[in-house]
This record gives sequence, C-alpha cells and structure tokens, in this order.
Amino acid sequence: MGETTATIEKMINTLLEERKFSTLRDVLDTMEPADIAVLFDGMSHEKMPIVFRLLSKELAAEAFVEMDTDLQEILIRGFSDKELKEVVDELYVDDAVDIVEEMPANVVRRILSQADPHMRKMINEILKYPEDSAGSIMTTEYVNFKPDLTVLEAIKTLRRSGVDKETIYTCYVTEKDRKLIGIITVRSLLLSDDDKTIRDIMEENVISVNTLDDQENVANMLAKYDFLALPVVDRENRLVGIVTVDDAIDVIREEATEDIEKMAAIIPSDKPYLKASAFELWKARIPWLLLLMLSSTFTQLIINRFEAALATTAVLAAYIPMLMGTGGNSGSQASVAVIRSLSLEEIDFADIFRIQWKEIRVSLLCGITLAAISFLKLVFFDRLSIAISLVVSVTLIVTVLCAKFVGASLPILSKKIGFDPAVMASPFITTIVDAISLLIYFSFASFIL
Amino acid sequence: MGETTATIEKMINTLLEERKFSTLRDVLDTMEPADIAVLFDGMSHEKMPIVFRLLSKELAAEAFVEMDTDLQEILIRGFSDKELKEVVDELYVDDAVDIVEEMPANVVRRILSQADPHMRKMINEILKYPEDSAGSIMTTEYVNFKPDLTVLEAIKTLRRSGVDKETIYTCYVTEKDRKLIGIITVRSLLLSDDDKTIRDIMEENVISVNTLDDQENVANMLAKYDFLALPVVDRENRLVGIVTVDDAIDVIREEATEDIEKMAAIIPSDKPYLKASAFELWKARIPWLLLLMLSSTFTQLIINRFEAALATTAVLAAYIPMLMGTGGNSGSQASVAVIRSLSLEEIDFADIFRIQWKEIRVSLLCGITLAAISFLKLVFFDRLSIAISLVVSVTLIVTVLCAKFVGASLPILSKKIGFDPAVMASPFITTIVDAISLLIYFSFASFIL
Repeated sequence: MGETTATIEKMINTLLEERKFSTLRDVLDTMEPADIAVLFDGMSHEKMPIVFRLLSKELAAEAFVEMDTDLQEILIRGFSDKELKEVVDELYVDDAVDIVEEMPANVVRRILSQADPHMRKMINEILKYPEDSAGSIMTTEYVNFKPDLTVLEAIKTLRRSGVDKETIYTCYVTEKDRKLIGIITVRSLLLSDDDKTIRDIMEENVISVNTLDDQENVANMLAKYDFLALPVVDRENRLVGIVTVDDAIDVIREEATEDIEKMAAIIPSDKPYLKASAFELWKARIPWLLLLMLSSTFTQLIINRFEAALATTAVLAAYIPMLMGTGGNSGSQASVAVIRSLSLEEIDFADIFRIQWKEIRVSLLCGITLAAISFLKLVFFDRLSIAISLVVSVTLIVTVLCAKFVGASLPILSKKIGFDPAVMASPFITTIVDAISLLIYFSFASFIL
Repeated sequence: MGETTATIEKMINTLLEERKFSTLRDVLDTMEPADIAVLFDGMSHEKMPIVFRLLSKELAAEAFVEMDTDLQEILIRGFSDKELKEVVDELYVDDAVDIVEEMPANVVRRILSQADPHMRKMINEILKYPEDSAGSIMTTEYVNFKPDLTVLEAIKTLRRSGVDKETIYTCYVTEKDRKLIGIITVRSLLLSDDDKTIRDIMEENVISVNTLDDQENVANMLAKYDFLALPVVDRENRLVGIVTVDDAIDVIREEATEDIEKMAAIIPSDKPYLKASAFELWKARIPWLLLLMLSSTFTQLIINRFEAALATTAVLAAYIPMLMGTGGNSGSQASVAVIRSLSLEEIDFADIFRIQWKEIRVSLLCGITLAAISFLKLVFFDRLSIAISLVVSVTLIVTVLCAKFVGASLPILSKKIGFDPAVMASPFITTIVDAISLLIYFSFASFIL
C-alpha cells in the first residue's frame, strides 16, 4: 500500500513539473476518490489547488469528501466562490453536513452562501439533530414513490430522477404527509412484472429508526438485518431521511475505536493517531493517568497500615505485584468481554445474574488453577514456608473471584444508570480490585502467620 | 428490545398452544429473518421444528442462516431429507459454506448429499480457501455480463436471471476465460441510454482482491471505497467470486472483537459471551493469566534482591503499586492507540520513527505532569522527605517514558516480523515495563538515599 502511494506520488510530481496536465488529468481519472484523498495528504500546499482543478467535477467532489478536515479547509480557503459552488453542488447533503460541522464559522458561512437554497435548507435541517443521533448521520436525498405507480412507471421515474440520490437501491413508499407506508428495493422492482403497482409488491413491514435514536443502535440494526439503507422517521412516522450502509460502517469502526480507547483510559477523539499533536495526545491521556495515580493512594495507605507486618515478613512485599497484576488481568478479561457484548447488543441488564453466576464459576476455575500452580512454585521453587505459600495462594483465589465479579458487574450496572460501560473498564476496576486484594492479602497474613 | 422479544415469545406460545397455526404463520410472515432467529433462541427444542415448518420456504432459509450453530444443528437433525433439501436449495453458497464449516462431519455429509451437484461443487470450491481469506468469505453467485451486450439487453437479462444472485447491484463484465475487464452498477445501467453497450459505460479501473488476501484487508477496502461488493480474482485475474458489504460488516465487527479480546489477554473465540460455557471461558482466559502470573517472577526477584533496602526504608514498598499501575496504564494507552491505527491501516512500519518521536514527547509531557503533582502530594500530604519524594517522582518520569516507548514500538515491530500486534498489548507490555520501572526505582533509591 505504502509503496504504491509513493510511486504514484512520484509520477504525479514529475508530470506536474513537466507541465503535462492532460496526461495528469487522465491518470487521476483512473483513480478512486479515496485514493486521490490519500495522495493529497502527502502533497505540498501549493500543488494542491493545481491538481484539484484538474479533476472532473464529480471526482473532485467525491475526493474532497474523503479528505481530512485540515486539507478540506486549505482547499476551501483557496477556492474562488465559483469553484466552491461547483464542489458544494456535487455534494450529497450528509457529506456537506459532515464538512460544515468540522469547519470554523467563517468557512461555514462561505459554504452556506454558495449552496443553493434547497441544499442550504437541508443542511440546516440536519444540523438541528443532536450529535451521534440517527438524524445527524442521515441524508435527505432518497427515492420516493407513491403507492399507485406501476413498476414500469417507477423504473422510468428512477431512470429520470435517480442521478442525484445517494442510493437508488432502496426506495421508499409514502402517502400524503410523507407518512412512510412501505419500502421497495430496485431488485424487487426489476424482478416484478411491468404492470404491477408499487402497493402490490412493496414490503409493508418496514423497519425504521427515529431521528433521535443513537447512531450505534442504527448501525447495529443495519448490520443485523443486512440492509443497504434504513429509513429515519419522526415521531409521526413521517419519512425525513435515510441512513446508508457506508455511513453505518463508519459508525461501527468509530464506535469500536472509541470503546477501545476508553478501555485503555484514553479520552476518545475523532483525529487519527498520526494527525494528533503531542499536546492533543497529552490532553487525551493525562486526565485518567492522573486520576488513577491519585486513586492508588488507597493501595498505598493499605500497605502503610501493614508496614509492621511487612518489616517482619519482608518477603510478602515481593508477591504484591503478582497478586495485583493477576487481579487486574482477571478483572479486565471479564469487564472487556461484558463491555463488548453490551456494544454488540448481545446482552442487556436482564442478563446480569446469569453473567455474574457464569463469572463466579469461571473465576473459581481460573483461581484454583492459578493457586495450585503458584502454591507448587512457592513451595518447591521459591522455597517458602507452607504457611506463606498458603497465604499467597488463597489470596489469589479470592482476588480472581472479586476481580471477575466486579469486572463483569460494573459495566452492566453503569449502563443501567446511564453511564458509559467502556469507561468502567480495566483501569478503573483495577483500582478497586487492587485495594480489595491487598486487604485480603494482609488480613490472611496477619491471621495465619 | 428485550421486552419486545418477550411479548412476541408469549404471543407465539399462546398461538401454538391454541393451535392457531394459520394466524401464527401470518405473524411470522411479518417478521425479519434476524428477529425470527432471536425468537428460536428462546424456544424449547420440541417447538422449534413445528414453528420452523410454518415459515415460507424463503423466510425459513433466511432465518436459518441467522441462527447460532447449535440451533442449526438441532433443526438439521430433526429435518427429513426433503426438508433439508428445501432449505439448502434456498441458501446462498457463502451462507451454506459458513454452516458447513461449523457442523460435525456426519451433518456435513447429509447437507452435501442434499445439495444439488452445482451447489455442492461451489461449496467444495470455497471450502478449499484458507480460513479468514477473501476466498473463504466470498460468494460465487454474482451477475456476469459480456461487454457487447446493450443496456436494454443487460436489464432484460438481469430481470430474468437475477433472482438467485446474492446482489444484482454490482455486475461484472468478463471476457472469455472469465477474465475480469470491468464492473457496472445497476445504477449506471438504469441511468444510461438503452442502446449503449456495456463496454461503453462500464468502469474499467476495477479494484479487486485476490482469493488469498486477508478478510480484514478486504473489509477495510470495502469501507474505504464505499463499495457494495468487491470482486475476488485468482492469480490470472479470472473472476471467481464477490464479497458483499454485509459480510464485510460482519468481518469488521468480528475483527474488532478479536482485537479487543486479545488486548485484554483473552484467546479470541467466535462464540458470543452468553453461549460460551464456564469451561470454555476458562480455556480462553487461563493461558494468559498463567503466563502473566509466572512472568511476574521477574518483578518478584527484583524486589527480593532489594529486600535489604526495603527493610530499612519500608515506606518505599507503599509506592510500588502506584508506580507499576501508572506504568501499566501509560504503556497500554500507547500500545492500544498504535494497535488500533494498525488495524485501521492508518499507519505502517515506515511510520515507526515518527511514532516513537511522538510518544517520547507525549510521555515527557505526561511524566512531568504526573511527577510534579505526585512530588507535591508526597512532600505536603504524605509528609515524606525531599529525597524519597524525588526518588518516586523521577522514577515516575522514566517509567512513563519507557512504558510509552515500549508500548508504541512493540506492536509495530511484532507486526513487521509477522506476529499479531494485538497480542503484544497491555498485559505483555506491562510485564516488561513493571520490571524496568522497579529496577529504576531501586537503583535511584540506592543512589540517592
């Protein structure tokens, strides 16, 4: 991948220097918009407008959509009003909204002033919906049929008016007042007789989402039902837009990245790693590091309290990292499994007791295995007394049990009360489990030794 | 979701008891295949065949595909040969392959014996490709045009033969020997004049994948280019199948789950959490727990070596958990960010120095912030001596630096030498960083105190 891009970059630079613009235009014409966007990413700012102007109108707009925000801004600032209008005219409304959302206010004003009135109205419509809602990711450019059209008429309508719709493959059947009463795919249209009516062949059991539904939910539904698009309706079941599968894929990838970041105690951001500055990464990482550092005061206080015990049996200290590490790993195994299942909507709150009971059994299996092996190691390899070996091994079992129980329960409970389960993951749970396991360790030690 | 399912389950049970089969059939007819599959999941094994026989042929096959393997197996074992043949006849070949891959040998033999010869041949064809390759997830049922067909003829062909193709929206243009020379979407077909030829309007710059390409790569390409399907070709550029976007979504979700599980030191499995038995979960979790427990022997040996220092300055032990915790969190922040970027193909090996340099700056920012705050806390809140406070704080900076450097570098290096970067994540890196930070801690302590 990397090598191909480098070769093409070199080719483009040479063609530019030799001013072979028509060859360059032909080369660019063979490329996918997404690949042209990658190309622009590595280009000097002076060359960008020159190359951009060589692209055909449609390709220019499609490549523009695929670019990162900072490149888009540079290009817009270099556009004449006419050029800006040409690009904006070619955009689908949901892409236009994505761009407008990321731009500074003065650029937004310029974009909106160049959009035609209908486009401007649609953009403003979508901007009203809350971030991460179905309304905010939908497009309002869909194909719409009345129920009494025949198949032949519908196909003719499609061939005439389909050009500037984001998808033509799923069409929507509405009554007056835009009430959604059915859907019809191009597939069933093509496979039906010419003189049937849309009402005869439409699918009446329409699965739709509400404008305010969470985008993750919408993406999960598209994935579950294998649809290419989902209709978005308002509270009166009036069709206001559609979400297409390509946007659902983006949501699925973004949400997975966000979950992964939260599990690793990073504050999620939309910026790709290489685009984020060191300062931005610091801002995303330091809050949790700081909180977790300070919360380890608990473990520190516990160790201080048992300082006397540690001074007489200093060997106990050597096993603290092992106990805390095993507790942390056990807890994050359980929490991560539960958080992922929650995201994929495989489990919900009603399953909490089943999950806890499962984790109790798994943790006993894991705890006893670990304890047995570590007991043998402590006695025969580390040559510790049976008493100390017993303290460490029994603490292991209880630690694994607590860790997995807390790790599995917290995400479900936090989702129930409206918090983000992913934030509850490893680092947070680790702090709780660390404190519990140390208390158990020293209590056993004081009791047995 | 949970509540709706419960209501429908109750309704179905009542209708079954009252033997109102035709009402039940009508109710089922309004449902999506994926929802029927969920319904079967909660049904007693005796009722399953009764309800399944009420479904229309097509719906039965579609719902069957959506079910978990254990349900499919129960149903197949209850089918007569005729019933099995009816279901198999309705399956798309990629779905049939998915089912065959999960079934025990005797069930596979029954399925293959009921499949018609053409289907059997296609199934066996796909089964030859390695797991997780493009070939293994493709379907061989696609629409294929010769280049000299006119648009009108092509649309007619589609309407005649499109019924049993998995997608008709992207069609493929091949020469003799099945050499792929272009693609054409139904959209451009419908929007073109009747008498143009396919050759006139087809897209000649075809993006395709090879049968042996990794499925994650294929899914990333579909996501990048917003395609609905990608052609799969062999080494001679002969078209052998296509991968559709719904399968790509499944791959994206599965691969994200796998990465998340590996990062949490779980051995990935295809089974949903609630379906896995306690024993299966134990098998997935115990290997890493055990390995990590034993590898903490290093930290234990280091602490033992400095037992004397600990005995004289027992307060040092109290800060070990904080140092190791912060090291672990810092390292996993860096490694997880890098692993996710690798999965999304945002970075590759050529970026290693840029990444390391970025992490060095981020870790100095983070380390100094944490050290400054902890120094104040140690001196004014914990009332430690300046010397000890200094040892802890300076160790913090070095620990964060090492953790982020190792955390960011290991995944890239391991990918380069062909290992899985996700396996290198938090737990593994933590062990290395723990050992380094303890060594630094005690070295500073011996030096300064």
